Amino acid sequence: MVLELYLDLLSQPSRAVYIFAKKNNIPFIMKSIEMLKGKALSISLSLSGSQRNRRNPLGESLSGDDVSGCSLTGQMFSEEFNKVNVLRKVPVLKDGDFTLEESTAILLYLTRKYNTPSHWYPPDMKKRARVDEYLAWQHTNIRTTASKILWLKVVIPLFLGQQVPQEKVQDAMEDLNLSLQKLEEKFLQEKPFIIGNEISLADLVAVVELMQPMGAGCDVLEGRPKLQEWRKRVEVTLGKELFAEAHARILNPQELRSISVDPPLKAQMKPAILKMLK
Amino acid sequence: MVLELYLDLLSQPSRAVYIFAKKNNIPFIMKSIEMLKGKALSISLSLSGSQRNRRNPLGESLSGDDVSGCSLTGQMFSEEFNKVNVLRKVPVLKDGDFTLEESTAILLYLTRKYNTPSHWYPPDMKKRARVDEYLAWQHTNIRTTASKILWLKVVIPLFLGQQVPQEKVQDAMEDLNLSLQKLEEKFLQEKPFIIGNEISLADLVAVVELMQPMGAGCDVLEGRPKLQEWRKRVEVTLGKELFAEAHARILNPQELRSISVDPPLKAQMKPAILKMLK
Repeated sequence: MVLELYLDLLSQPSRAVYIFAKKNNIPFIMKSIEMLKGKALSISLSLSGSQRNRRNPLGESLSGDDVSGCSLTGQMFSEEFNKVNVLRKVPVLKDGDFTLEESTAILLYLTRKYNTPSHWYPPDMKKRARVDEYLAWQHTNIRTTASKILWLKVVIPLFLGQQVPQEKVQDAMEDLNLSLQKLEEKFLQEKPFIIGNEISLADLVAVVELMQPMGAGCDVLEGRPKLQEWRKRVEVTLGKELFAEAHARILNPQELRSISVDPPLKAQMKPAILKMLK
Repeated sequence: MVLELYLDLLSQPSRAVYIFAKKNNIPFIMKSIEMLKGKALSISLSLSGSQRNRRNPLGESLSGDDVSGCSLTGQMFSEEFNKVNVLRKVPVLKDGDFTLEESTAILLYLTRKYNTPSHWYPPDMKKRARVDEYLAWQHTNIRTTASKILWLKVVIPLFLGQQVPQEKVQDAMEDLNLSLQKLEEKFLQEKPFIIGNEISLADLVAVVELMQPMGAGCDVLEGRPKLQEWRKRVEVTLGKELFAEAHARILNPQELRSISVDPPLKAQMKPAILKMLK
């Protein structure tokens, strides 16, 4: 049975899983979800390295959460998506009757099941611990702070029909800057990649997060030449074409700002968003 | 060289590491930190299963962050603690010249280095993925929501000298209840432990978090018999004596409420705490 991946490429953890699977020629069927629109776009997409996307809209009514790190609590999931997605987030992996949520758990599962090159998650005990350390740290740091910029500048206005106060964005930028400083000083230091000379899951998980605010037109690495160089290095190592393909939607601010949020989701989420902005 | 662990047993991730190391008879020197008091209490404590604590106050001036999940940004670290603790959190592991932060990374490192019984992190690919899934999920769920209760009810009043608005506590309880519901329905289900019939790192990491609000006198498992049974089962499996020893300080609300917070830390943290409460 071919692996199925439920992904929304507007979600940074979905992009990490997508890039990892394609980069490592892992065959999978992509179940493409558009959380904000409340739709399953597609999709039977068998990938085996060189194959291209084949999208077959199914038109199911889906919605969900965690497009970019903040929680939604949509109730309008299709039965199919509900079955695989108890936490109501993307990405979700389905391998036969085994379903798995949480992107970092999915990435680790893929490294083991497909025996991917060891640099992704090195057997060396100390290097592996460094990957684990980054993957644990990022949840309440880069993961939270970077995605918040996109939420405040793009996603929340889609729900509320108005901009959020500039002060909120400023606060979020300050938090992100603290995270970026730690990424640079504690994790990257003077090395080409987070754990040394080779790319690992840590770099992949980090870079997709830092691309998220770019969707809001914020180059959060401005003034940080070391992180800029690292970002380019990661992009080239992953493959510029694959990187661009995975980020095409998030890097299209015009398209992002014109998304029509699923009306029931909008109504349902409004109180939570207003509370978030209090 | 004997492993060194920098721990503050008021911090739930520190307790997870402490319990794991003792339960598995891993020899270590405990460097005991009291984050809130800005002190290194001690300690040369070589543990090999049956040995008891031997505390030798060093009187160094230390302070730090993340006693219970919220970030502090203390600047007054001793040189020794600074060297091992770039993220300024506990727990920290020091193994010769290798230092490691983030409790889940430390636990995984210990399972590998000391080849602990396989039930903690099973080699079976799917069971291992379930542990990874829980460890990833908890960071922005139980980890955040449970510790917040203690912060609001006990820690923040220590900093501000006054109670926080009841509405804030109520909001935090609602968030925690959503997390508990997911822990019960998605992770535990009808099994004795999170991944099945045996205890794993997931149960250990979960249980120490749920003990945190107890320090504020909140039995957050009230009305959840399934989680109560699981909690007892985990406690018995870890060993009641060890469990009690690790939780002695957090379960002493009177002592907690009389902690005298390090004055420079208090002054430094006040703006951040007021912002948190806005």
